[in-house]
Amino acid sequence: MSTTFVWPVRVYYEDTDTAGVVYYANYLKFMERARTEWLRSFGFEQDVLIRDEKLVFAVRSVTVDYRRPALFNDALEVTASIRQFGKASIDFEQSVIRNTRDQEELLASGKIKLACLDSESLRPKPLPSPIAEVLLSVR
Amino acid sequence: MSTTFVWPVRVYYEDTDTAGVVYYANYLKFMERARTEWLRSFGFEQDVLIRDEKLVFAVRSVTVDYRRPALFNDALEVTASIRQFGKASIDFEQSVIRNTRDQEELLASGKIKLACLDSESLRPKPLPSPIAEVLLSVR
Amino acid sequence: MSTTFVWPVRVYYEDTDTAGVVYYANYLKFMERARTEWLRSFGFEQDVLIRDEKLVFAVRSVTVDYRRPALFNDALEVTASIRQFGKASIDFEQSVIRNTRDQEELLASGKIKLACLDSESLRPKPLPSPIAEVLLSVR
Amino acid sequence: MSTTFVWPVRVYYEDTDTAGVVYYANYLKFMERARTEWLRSFGFEQDVLIRDEKLVFAVRSVTVDYRRPALFNDALEVTASIRQFGKASIDFEQSVIRNTRDQEELLASGKIKLACLDSESLRPKPLPSPIAEVLLSVR
Repeated sequence: MSTTFVWPVRVYYEDTDTAGVVYYANYLKFMERARTEWLRSFGFEQDVLIRDEKLVFAVRSVTVDYRRPALFNDALEVTASIRQFGKASIDFEQSVIRNTRDQEELLASGKIKLACLDSESLRPKPLPSPIAEVLLSVR
Repeated sequence: MSTTFVWPVRVYYEDTDTAGVVYYANYLKFMERARTEWLRSFGFEQDVLIRDEKLVFAVRSVTVDYRRPALFNDALEVTASIRQFGKASIDFEQSVIRNTRDQEELLASGKIKLACLDSESLRPKPLPSPIAEVLLSVR
Repeated sequence: MSTTFVWPVRVYYEDTDTAGVVYYANYLKFMERARTEWLRSFGFEQDVLIRDEKLVFAVRSVTVDYRRPALFNDALEVTASIRQFGKASIDFEQSVIRNTRDQEELLASGKIKLACLDSESLRPKPLPSPIAEVLLSVR
Repeated sequence: MSTTFVWPVRVYYEDTDTAGVVYYANYLKFMERARTEWLRSFGFEQDVLIRDEKLVFAVRSVTVDYRRPALFNDALEVTASIRQFGKASIDFEQSVIRNTRDQEELLASGKIKLACLDSESLRPKPLPSPIAEVLLSVR
């Protein structure tokens, strides 16, 4: 069973829209922050991966279900866990949660598929072993 | 067969990221611009719908497949067509296309499900007849 | 006296915040769109300038005064005119205007200073003659 | 002498542009996050201020000088300190700093003027006493 990583995100004015809620595209930003911090938690910095390994991650597809709106000033938790991975791809399962005194509300859930690419040719490139090992360990 | 609406979108610096491509969340902005202009092309202004009909559209789910990256300065076309609709929901099929001299490249395609809500109670609200009639006519 | 360039900008959901107005940072996006289109109106494409001349423009400073808020769905006009320019810099004066039936409202005005840089060394680089000529002609 | 508040900001992909640096408008987002957290550090939550006091802050003017670019993955510090304040206005001085092993680099500095408004009439409204007291104490 996959370990779940959790990253806190605060909602600022910049994230909201005139409907009084977080703008729907911005959940994708929150989810990417959590994926970036998930990688960082294992010691992988994406600027180093580009520079030293010519490796970039590209988003291949996203699916997001919006259940309840997040509001200005909300303190959210964004999760990231691994659904599966291949030689040159990682599938994340993510959710955006609001914790209030009494309850935990699921606001949005997403499936995000990443491809691992060579930063120059933009062709698929196998995940470096250290990342593959982490993926095996948290699966 | 559904009629397809097309809206031009130019890529500016604001839309790109350090990978040199349009940031993945921003395709959702482009798709919403096309949906807004689709509605406007039939005479429906969302600020008037809120004020006079207490009607708002909320995004319930999105699925986007990213095929090729859009680049700074690209002149894109964003399409919107109706897949289906219900009493209080509309499902759009959308694509982001780059037209160059010789070819038409599909960069991204998406399915976006909207709910029609009462702007105060945020409960589902039937589509107003004039919008339902348009949906029947373009289906 | 400087010629004024005008570029239309429509306000979408993405531009607004929970206060029901255009988010203050987004006026800078609107102003940049107008500067980009100003350049394009004279035949200068920034992707070509980077590729062929290794030239990029960097914003050195901005000052914006906010008078009245722009709202969702507003059809705005964003102006760009040249205040002055140097060997490797351009100072723009810009405004964001809302035209309604009876009146023209100034919503925001800005002064934006650009530096012309070598895209590799990031050091100041003289404006190419064709751009300098345009600047002289519209001053 | 004013006390300086410091808030950490990490640069994600969402913040960057195709020039490989943080997009110039996004420094305004970073500065607002720091102002919001400055208020929060004294116990003032803006959603509560709107609901209970019908009080909102509106940005009246901004001036930003850009010295050096912030890059993807940078760990920044954003400062906020009070330059002066009036009956219904606060002037902030802010900076964006990058701390690396050996040095502290000033990337951008800004002056931001806020007006305190009634959230319904949008007319100036005196700062509530508890906020005025804090401003006096940190000046």
